[in-house]
Amino acid sequence: MPRRGATLTRGIDGCQCPGQDGRVTTATEPTQAVCCSPLQGAPLSAEDAQTLARTVKALADPTRLRLVSLVAAHGGEACVCDLTEPVGLSQPTVSHHLKVLVDAGLMTRDKRGVWAYYALVPGALADLARVLSTP
Amino acid sequence: MPRRGATLTRGIDGCQCPGQDGRVTTATEPTQAVCCSPLQGAPLSAEDAQTLARTVKALADPTRLRLVSLVAAHGGEACVCDLTEPVGLSQPTVSHHLKVLVDAGLMTRDKRGVWAYYALVPGALADLARVLSTP
Repeated sequence: MPRRGATLTRGIDGCQCPGQDGRVTTATEPTQAVCCSPLQGAPLSAEDAQTLARTVKALADPTRLRLVSLVAAHGGEACVCDLTEPVGLSQPTVSHHLKVLVDAGLMTRDKRGVWAYYALVPGALADLARVLSTP
Repeated sequence: MPRRGATLTRGIDGCQCPGQDGRVTTATEPTQAVCCSPLQGAPLSAEDAQTLARTVKALADPTRLRLVSLVAAHGGEACVCDLTEPVGLSQPTVSHHLKVLVDAGLMTRDKRGVWAYYALVPGALADLARVLSTP
């Protein structure tokens, strides 16, 4: 299981924590997929630059760009079983690339039966675009 | 001299070619800094994905993100002599990162006297943002 992916999922679906009475409660914790104030605003801090670079790096690969594009073309969610053939790579390789996108907060992963389904995080690419281009 | 940077400059300033009569003529050849149809439109071709990944990769580094941000904060153009201290790196290292941004078509380089000045290519980041985020 992807550790950072799990963090993202917690952010979206809420985190189940046992309370003092032993009952499980759900704490919602909104997560912003893409960090940082606009790149072309005030100079970026070293810390924000590290965080933003991690997100950008997840997209800095032709296979991952194609996977994002394919998932979008599937209406925003696709089974990994529908993604291997179009990119011409083995399922473990495709799953690795998808994990990088999940870890970066750009996709979510949902296991249903034997297959994993990947969905674009709504607004994540738009957030990134806004950080890059807002003057 | 950066080879691909030179190509970009030719695209902006025109390419000087000797004509049949030996006179030098100027052919303007508009260059689009960032390739490709929207990532979230039709599935990206393998070739377009390679081209787009090269541009994204140029930004997938914290120092280069900070340099873009610093040049923007300088009004869109800055001397390399004003960029080394804020990022805390040597001038050769900063010049290397700036060359990557020039090669990717995101910046231009202009030598004036002993210093090189770097400017953001107008619209290049906005083009990239549009490719990433347009549904």
